[in-house]
Amino acid sequence: MRRQHYSEWCRRVFLAGSTLACVLGTAIGAEAQALKDVQTPDTPLVLKAQGSFFVGGAKADETEVELGNLGPAGHIAVNQMYVRFMVPQNGAGNVPVIMVHGATLTGKSWETTPDGRMGWDEYFVRKRHPVYVPDQVGRGRSGFNQAVFNNVRAGKAPAADQPAMFRFSDEVVWPNFRFGATPGVPFADSQFPVSAVDELAKQGVPDVSRLLPTPNPTFKALSELATQLSGAVVMGHSQSGPFPLETALLNPAATKALVLVEPGRCPDTYTDDQIKVLATVPILVVFGDHRDTPTGISIRPSWQLSFESCQALIRRVKAASGDAQMLNPPDRGIRGNSHMIMQDKNHLQIADLILQWIDDKVRISPGARK
Amino acid sequence: MRRQHYSEWCRRVFLAGSTLACVLGTAIGAEAQALKDVQTPDTPLVLKAQGSFFVGGAKADETEVELGNLGPAGHIAVNQMYVRFMVPQNGAGNVPVIMVHGATLTGKSWETTPDGRMGWDEYFVRKRHPVYVPDQVGRGRSGFNQAVFNNVRAGKAPAADQPAMFRFSDEVVWPNFRFGATPGVPFADSQFPVSAVDELAKQGVPDVSRLLPTPNPTFKALSELATQLSGAVVMGHSQSGPFPLETALLNPAATKALVLVEPGRCPDTYTDDQIKVLATVPILVVFGDHRDTPTGISIRPSWQLSFESCQALIRRVKAASGDAQMLNPPDRGIRGNSHMIMQDKNHLQIADLILQWIDDKVRISPGARK
Repeated sequence: MRRQHYSEWCRRVFLAGSTLACVLGTAIGAEAQALKDVQTPDTPLVLKAQGSFFVGGAKADETEVELGNLGPAGHIAVNQMYVRFMVPQNGAGNVPVIMVHGATLTGKSWETTPDGRMGWDEYFVRKRHPVYVPDQVGRGRSGFNQAVFNNVRAGKAPAADQPAMFRFSDEVVWPNFRFGATPGVPFADSQFPVSAVDELAKQGVPDVSRLLPTPNPTFKALSELATQLSGAVVMGHSQSGPFPLETALLNPAATKALVLVEPGRCPDTYTDDQIKVLATVPILVVFGDHRDTPTGISIRPSWQLSFESCQALIRRVKAASGDAQMLNPPDRGIRGNSHMIMQDKNHLQIADLILQWIDDKVRISPGARK
Repeated sequence: MRRQHYSEWCRRVFLAGSTLACVLGTAIGAEAQALKDVQTPDTPLVLKAQGSFFVGGAKADETEVELGNLGPAGHIAVNQMYVRFMVPQNGAGNVPVIMVHGATLTGKSWETTPDGRMGWDEYFVRKRHPVYVPDQVGRGRSGFNQAVFNNVRAGKAPAADQPAMFRFSDEVVWPNFRFGATPGVPFADSQFPVSAVDELAKQGVPDVSRLLPTPNPTFKALSELATQLSGAVVMGHSQSGPFPLETALLNPAATKALVLVEPGRCPDTYTDDQIKVLATVPILVVFGDHRDTPTGISIRPSWQLSFESCQALIRRVKAASGDAQMLNPPDRGIRGNSHMIMQDKNHLQIADLILQWIDDKVRISPGARK
C-alpha cells in the first residue's frame, strides 16, 4: 500500500494516451520541495496581532483502550475548532473574514499557494481585513475523536463501526478540481499552476467527516467565532461551501456577508422561513470554469450541477427580497479558473472581485447587520 | 464514548479527594472559548515574509477502498511535512529556528499560549530569528496514510493491523505534564496557567506515530529543511526532544545548534562515531521542575529518568570534546516550570535563556558549521 514510485503512474497515464503526466511526474518528482519556490513579497506585512486559538469543543469520557493505551482512562477534548488569525496593523473598523477549507484539506488551502505565491489569507490582510483560518472540526490541527478506531483495533467494536477516511487520488483531482479532463493534461487555458500539482497533493489529509455528530460542530463553532468577532464575513470552499449558510442560520446578526467559493452544493432543502433568514445577509457564490468536465466521482458527476443548485438557491433568496448573486468569471471574459480558484495563477484577480463585493455590501448597510 | 459532561469528572476527582478540579471544571466549562483571552501586543509584528510549505513526501498507490471509496484508485502524497514560517523584516543574517512539537500535539504548541499570551514562535521572530514550525509527519496538517484503517473497515485487513491512535487524558496530563501531582491541584509554585488547562486539552490530536515507516520520515524532512535554510537551530520538545539529534546525524553541517526541550529521552544507543558527529554541534537540553512527580504512565514513571538520560548523553558528548549542557532552571532559582515550558507563565524568561545561548553558540564559530 505504500509503494513510492512515479513510474507506475507514468505507465498508467501513458496507457491512457498521454505522456505529459509522465514528464510532469519526472520533472516535479516525488521529493519535490517547495521552500525554494516560496516568493517573498516586495513590502513587509505589518500585523497588529497574529496567533491561534480554539472555538467550541466538549469533553468525552474515554477508556484506556480508547486512548490507545498510552495512559489510564479519562477525559479528552473533542469537537473543538482550531483557528489561526492575522490582524493587520491598519485594519481598524474593517470586517474580519473567516476562510473555511474543503474536503480532505485543511486551512492550508488559503495559505501560500502550491507554487509559492501569497495566499488569500495574507492578501486579504494586506487589503486591511483581519483574517481567521480554521481547520474544520475533525481535520488537521482540530483533531478528531479516535476512540472508535482504537476500539475496533482491540476487538471491542466491529470494523464497520469506524467511518471511512476520505482522500482524493492525484489522478481524480485533475478532472474533479478541473485542471484538465485527463490526469496530467491541463486545459489549454488552465489557471491552476499545474507544475506544482504535487505540492497541492501534499495538502491532502484523511477526512473523517463521517465521524462527526450531526449537525457538524463546525457550524456552531463558526457561528460562535463570528459572534465573538462582533460580525464577520464567512467564506466556505467546496465541501464547506454551504457552511456560511449554516452559520448565518444560527445567528444571522453575526454574519455580515457570505461567500460560497465553488460549493459542492447549495442546499435545496431550506424552508421558506430559513430562506427569509438568509435573505437578510448578502450572499456571493463564486465558481470557476470548465464546470461540465466529468469528475469521475459518482456523487458529483459534474460541477455544473453544483453551479445550478446555487443558481436555484440564489433565485429563492432573491424571491424573498434577499441580496444573492453569482460571480461567474467566464461572464467577464476570465477563463480557465479551477476548483482551487484561491490557488489559481489569477487568484488575486478573483480575490479583488470578492473584496470589491465585500466592500460594497458590508458598507451599504453597516448598521443593519450590526 | 462521547459523553459531554464535566459532572462525572468532578465526581471522580471529588472521590479522589479534591474539589478544586470540580471548581475549575465549572469555571472554565466544556465550552470555554479563548478568543476573548487572546492578548494583543503593544507593538506591531513586521514580517518580511510568512506562509507555509511542505518538505519531503512520497507517493503511495492506493485502491478505491483505501481511499475511502470517495473516488477511483490512484496515488496520494504521504509522509510530507507541513511547515508554517515567519521571517522578521529585521532578521537578515540571523539563524533560523525550527520548532518541533511533541506527542499527541501539533505545531500549535509553539503558537499563542492556552491563556492567550504570545507564543515562542512570535517571540523568537520578534528577537529577529526566522521561525519554522512543522507539524510532524503523520500529525495535524501533515496528514497520514489512511489506507490501513479503510482496509480494516472493509474487512480486507485484520483489525490488529491498524496502529493505536494515542491521546493523553486531561487527568493524566496533570501529573505527566507536571502541573500538579493530582488532577486539578496545581503545585503551589506551578508556572503553568492552569486556569486555561482546558484550552491546552484542545491542542490534542490523535497521534498515529506507530503508522510511520522507520526511521520516522520527520527526521529526513527536518534535515532537508535545515539544509534548504542553509543552516538552522533545531528545537524539539518531549517526544520530538531527540529529533534534533537525529537531524544533526543526517547532516551536521545544516544544524547550527540543537535545543532539546524536555525530551522524553536522550538515546543511550548512539555509537562512538555518532557521538563524534554530535560533538560538532552545540547542544542545549532544557528541563522544568518537579521532575520526580509520578507520571501515572508506565512507559515513563518520572521525568527525572528522562533528565538523567540526557545528563548521560551530555557527558558522552563532552567526553568527545563536544559542547553540550543542561539548562535546569531550578539551579538558577527559577521554580515551578512544567513540561509545557513554552506555555508557562514565565515562558519568555526561559526563551531569553535559550536565545542567549543560541546567540553565544552560533556567533562563536559562524563559519565552522557554515
